Amino acid sequence: MILSKAIAALGLLAAASATPPAERAREAGVVIGVLPPGPLNAITDVDGVEIGHVTIDEGKNVHTGVTAILPHGGNVFRSRVPAGFVAFNAFGKFAGSTQVVELGEIETPILLTNTLNVPEAAAGAVEWTLTQPGNETVRSVNAVVGETNDGVLNDIRRRRVTVADARRAIEVAKGGAVEEGSVGAGTGTVAFGFKGGIGTASRRLPSSQGGWTLGVLVQSNYGGVLNIAGVPVGIKLGRHAFAERGDRDTADGSVVVVIATDAPLSDRNLRRIAERAFIGIGRTGSSFSNGSGDYAIAFSTSPAVRREEGSVAMVQIADLRNEAVSLLFQAVAEATEEAVVNSLFAGKTVEGHRGTIERLPVETILPWLVAGEKK
Amino acid sequence: MILSKAIAALGLLAAASATPPAERAREAGVVIGVLPPGPLNAITDVDGVEIGHVTIDEGKNVHTGVTAILPHGGNVFRSRVPAGFVAFNAFGKFAGSTQVVELGEIETPILLTNTLNVPEAAAGAVEWTLTQPGNETVRSVNAVVGETNDGVLNDIRRRRVTVADARRAIEVAKGGAVEEGSVGAGTGTVAFGFKGGIGTASRRLPSSQGGWTLGVLVQSNYGGVLNIAGVPVGIKLGRHAFAERGDRDTADGSVVVVIATDAPLSDRNLRRIAERAFIGIGRTGSSFSNGSGDYAIAFSTSPAVRREEGSVAMVQIADLRNEAVSLLFQAVAEATEEAVVNSLFAGKTVEGHRGTIERLPVETILPWLVAGEKK
Amino acid sequence: MILSKAIAALGLLAAASATPPAERAREAGVVIGVLPPGPLNAITDVDGVEIGHVTIDEGKNVHTGVTAILPHGGNVFRSRVPAGFVAFNAFGKFAGSTQVVELGEIETPILLTNTLNVPEAAAGAVEWTLTQPGNETVRSVNAVVGETNDGVLNDIRRRRVTVADARRAIEVAKGGAVEEGSVGAGTGTVAFGFKGGIGTASRRLPSSQGGWTLGVLVQSNYGGVLNIAGVPVGIKLGRHAFAERGDRDTADGSVVVVIATDAPLSDRNLRRIAERAFIGIGRTGSSFSNGSGDYAIAFSTSPAVRREEGSVAMVQIADLRNEAVSLLFQAVAEATEEAVVNSLFAGKTVEGHRGTIERLPVETILPWLVAGEKK
Amino acid sequence: MILSKAIAALGLLAAASATPPAERAREAGVVIGVLPPGPLNAITDVDGVEIGHVTIDEGKNVHTGVTAILPHGGNVFRSRVPAGFVAFNAFGKFAGSTQVVELGEIETPILLTNTLNVPEAAAGAVEWTLTQPGNETVRSVNAVVGETNDGVLNDIRRRRVTVADARRAIEVAKGGAVEEGSVGAGTGTVAFGFKGGIGTASRRLPSSQGGWTLGVLVQSNYGGVLNIAGVPVGIKLGRHAFAERGDRDTADGSVVVVIATDAPLSDRNLRRIAERAFIGIGRTGSSFSNGSGDYAIAFSTSPAVRREEGSVAMVQIADLRNEAVSLLFQAVAEATEEAVVNSLFAGKTVEGHRGTIERLPVETILPWLVAGEKK
Repeated sequence: MILSKAIAALGLLAAASATPPAERAREAGVVIGVLPPGPLNAITDVDGVEIGHVTIDEGKNVHTGVTAILPHGGNVFRSRVPAGFVAFNAFGKFAGSTQVVELGEIETPILLTNTLNVPEAAAGAVEWTLTQPGNETVRSVNAVVGETNDGVLNDIRRRRVTVADARRAIEVAKGGAVEEGSVGAGTGTVAFGFKGGIGTASRRLPSSQGGWTLGVLVQSNYGGVLNIAGVPVGIKLGRHAFAERGDRDTADGSVVVVIATDAPLSDRNLRRIAERAFIGIGRTGSSFSNGSGDYAIAFSTSPAVRREEGSVAMVQIADLRNEAVSLLFQAVAEATEEAVVNSLFAGKTVEGHRGTIERLPVETILPWLVAGEKK
Repeated sequence: MILSKAIAALGLLAAASATPPAERAREAGVVIGVLPPGPLNAITDVDGVEIGHVTIDEGKNVHTGVTAILPHGGNVFRSRVPAGFVAFNAFGKFAGSTQVVELGEIETPILLTNTLNVPEAAAGAVEWTLTQPGNETVRSVNAVVGETNDGVLNDIRRRRVTVADARRAIEVAKGGAVEEGSVGAGTGTVAFGFKGGIGTASRRLPSSQGGWTLGVLVQSNYGGVLNIAGVPVGIKLGRHAFAERGDRDTADGSVVVVIATDAPLSDRNLRRIAERAFIGIGRTGSSFSNGSGDYAIAFSTSPAVRREEGSVAMVQIADLRNEAVSLLFQAVAEATEEAVVNSLFAGKTVEGHRGTIERLPVETILPWLVAGEKK
Repeated sequence: MILSKAIAALGLLAAASATPPAERAREAGVVIGVLPPGPLNAITDVDGVEIGHVTIDEGKNVHTGVTAILPHGGNVFRSRVPAGFVAFNAFGKFAGSTQVVELGEIETPILLTNTLNVPEAAAGAVEWTLTQPGNETVRSVNAVVGETNDGVLNDIRRRRVTVADARRAIEVAKGGAVEEGSVGAGTGTVAFGFKGGIGTASRRLPSSQGGWTLGVLVQSNYGGVLNIAGVPVGIKLGRHAFAERGDRDTADGSVVVVIATDAPLSDRNLRRIAERAFIGIGRTGSSFSNGSGDYAIAFSTSPAVRREEGSVAMVQIADLRNEAVSLLFQAVAEATEEAVVNSLFAGKTVEGHRGTIERLPVETILPWLVAGEKK
Repeated sequence: MILSKAIAALGLLAAASATPPAERAREAGVVIGVLPPGPLNAITDVDGVEIGHVTIDEGKNVHTGVTAILPHGGNVFRSRVPAGFVAFNAFGKFAGSTQVVELGEIETPILLTNTLNVPEAAAGAVEWTLTQPGNETVRSVNAVVGETNDGVLNDIRRRRVTVADARRAIEVAKGGAVEEGSVGAGTGTVAFGFKGGIGTASRRLPSSQGGWTLGVLVQSNYGGVLNIAGVPVGIKLGRHAFAERGDRDTADGSVVVVIATDAPLSDRNLRRIAERAFIGIGRTGSSFSNGSGDYAIAFSTSPAVRREEGSVAMVQIADLRNEAVSLLFQAVAEATEEAVVNSLFAGKTVEGHRGTIERLPVETILPWLVAGEKK
């Protein structure tokens, strides 16, 4: 017990000492899509959303962690948010999805971690929920946990993430700017053969279209033929999953996408939102290989659709009609694509368990991306 | 560590000291359906299937456990079985379903436990798999875990089941007769207001129809208006979920159904098999209330559809055509219904955390069920 | 054209001359379930719902027809109702389901007919919609059409039903008592080896539980081992799909279930309602054989969830919470079971294209069903 | 009758007099993806696949038609092919999908047409099947029909396509080069504000990877922000769905994708193939707006998975393992993207019912697409 606390503390320490983020794609002049981002260009542009990272970097062999996404700062179990879920290619261990689909809601924070530590993350979400004030009689908790496999850089068979790590990720969650790259659940992930990780982005609709904000956070750990803003970077670099080299540029891997919006959507339309995340992933160059675990979950923070505890059978809720959701579909595709690019731009070279993964050579490719001719 | 081993040993002790099973429904003269059972009238009639229980009965407040179902005695990760999955009402925490659906296979034993210990059961399945001979390089494991909520008899918030308990359930699994009732994952469950638990049954097809065997194991923990072999027992007893009394005869609760067959079925047809389990559940009197977590998973043990590890891209497999599966559909509906009845017949009165749950008054109802007039 | 009008007129004539309905099951003393029916014990107990039959009985070889279900008497395209859909076993040709699922709504009447005339029924729904006042600019119509195969009594390859027949079924729809048995889309259907057809039933919730009404209409054309109110009628008669006789008592065939309710439900909860219809079907003795096309569609007539045409992006709607739907789940299972029984009780012996199908021998079985001992 | 035959003949005439196809994208130097195409770069590169178009161009107001895709030249009902189906955004009227999913197979040719003539196309497929030699006792036919809405150029409310047109499309089907653009079901369609239509492309895997061929045919009728080979053509032209202009560059519309392969795939893996088609569509600039009906269906022509009529219950089939399908996933994404581009390159300016739709200004954009710098 004492040891695990000490190790957890080290994880926090690692998080605290993370290097300042590199320039993000948009700041470097890479423009993706046609809609504008929110002020932070992050999932936290959606009011109330909080993100917590626990980063575990312990020498060469351990690079992993946990990332928590809280839909709001209150009691999530007692004040649930509608949610939609899609598994595009389900070679993965996503926990909690069936209840989300059946009831159309989530009742815990969403956690991301590595493939073999989903149980510990789920236990963390359960324990945290059971111990929240007001939850003293709760006897059923649906933990929602996504994962990707960081087994190249991380000695994943150690199953290093603890229940305490997972709880800590929830507890340290906060609004504001989101740390990207090799942090939290993205500490050990690899995308397109380069260092992947956590990335985020957002879009804001014109006020004439409701003015809604939609934000995305990704844990990128997949491959294919890298495209950035339409430029075939993988081909130009001669590095992609189907090139002759046959090295680590595999198409396998996974990605988890978490989407928040303040638009008052039904769980059905949130599912449709989640589905479009994969269009953004596809544009970065994935064809969703057999070994990929590709999941998206979307929730609405709107108070007008919040599901408050209570004994009343019938409630009045707001509903954005089917006819009014298309611009949000565009927003999620764009923001997901940009979130992945941000995860790559924030990457750093890491020497790990089974080799070294280099960061994306931003200097080399940036001229291709921002040529005046291009857009 | 030492403590947890001691506790696990207690669990084993409890399992060892269980009372001999009561007479099963068929032996008592209750006939369900038109197809004959296999020799044991149990899921273990399907050759190779093994069942392991860890029963945790610790005083008044702790009544819980784990049940493991192994499709065969070999390395399940390296020699996978095709599988189908259905969530009928998914207010539940079933782990591993998305990968089962995507790949059409399972790669671990199936574990059943209580709602809040799914993470520990999943961790047990992961650890067990990682440590099996031949799995030294495995870095991805899809644990399949079902649950129901035993929170009436069991102080479920204690989250008493450990990772070691889960591993033990796998390790003690064996063929032959299956212990039913308040054992393993059924230790603390309640069905139709009476003591539920583990039940099993099987059906064997005529040799002219392939001679296939299909077996079912249920963890019964749900309610409604109890019917046994068509007799409205709940109404006759004046005890059902919609009666005036308003006591514990709730329609909520859950059931998990595990189905094995030696018929060489595709994962698609195994999904169809799993779906018909709910017809059997419905016949016992459930209408699948909102709060019910009702899941079924079916697998084939046929060597002709086994998915062996290997580098060859294309294999030859057997396939029972769509046109030949209907009798198996009948078999699963019948066996599921009978497995639930067996779980009730094997029940014993238990004093637990939040009250006492009595066993089904078999003596009272049996005359209703076996009247010569009836069939 | 003139010929087809004349034939359509014959169809109407046949409908007009139908014999008065036999005593319905409940009136004969057969009680199914624990909830009370509405005043008509019919789908039309749900305010606003209208039913139209066109019955085509033309000599020995032609026994078929169309049944229309209108959610309300207004412009269904401009004033849509939320809807949920489930295919339990989808060996069938149900039209329009994908859009119903995506948008969670229906925009036309629902039509039922025979398997090979789904195109004509769909064309009828499209034409009717295009020609309704207010629909002059409509250029997209999602016709919803279910079917079962009446090919034993009806020379189905003739494809006798016309577009005009389908339109007529919509035009003659009305509220009030619903004709059952060999009428409309049930004219030529067979259930459990006996004459099946159209059946209907309803349930009304206590006012303390919202007082909602739920009604069901079925087109019964399937088989298995007939159970009525739990009594194994098929076994007692020695006639069922798995008996030795090997005659027409096949398990194949199909059933379509249409459900209406005035409860203000989301499309997600309407899907859950539709799913429970199959529990009722299962209780009558079906195990949903491979060759069965078993579909259910449920809609809400509540003005508080109606989707009115308009340019406003966001609306306020009522929503019956997840926690409050369980009694409606019980209601749909019960009403579906009773609707099937009603379809059998209303059956009459018909000599048809490929043989004669007798009506259910109600006199023989009724004593089994209403014995004082039973309930 | 005579009139309709005459009109059908006109349709054929129109098809016959179509202008020779413009240069296709690849021939013009536009390279999409990393895998090579087959010899024809068409769905007909998959051995046995046949395509038939009936084009109906009748003055200003009627521009519509039918396209038939035959998996092989034999009796498709008696010799079925496994198939997978995905509805990405299901604002559409796709017929036959539920049985395809349940049984994992198709038993008729696939037809494409306009939204309001799906019934006539379905009737055509039914009639054609009923009248094929060997089908004299067939009494159930599952017609598979896709559609998009050509209501800008075509007076769709006329419902001009006849049953005879649909049968004719099947009858004229043949292998070899496939006519693209404003032909068959693409006669009146619009994509990204330009003239869309039928497009096709293929990919062939290296022989070391099985050497399988995969071909795609699309009916393009959708919008968004046009990208071709990664170049933001819509932005550069200042014409896209979210631009200020607010004219006809809508994101609505639909696309249907038909995929054939000679790889011996299970229906489950064919579904996964179908799903990746939408990644190709997404790369062309769609975010799948609410009003879009976006469907894909994939089938395997491999004799080793063919489902031949017969009485034997169990068969031996080939199966390409999960681990071996990823390159086919890449193939379908690439071929779908290229098929759409081909549909645009083959477009011609058409004056129609509600306005004139110009062809894509290939001359203007080609320099952007083939700049040496780009790839």
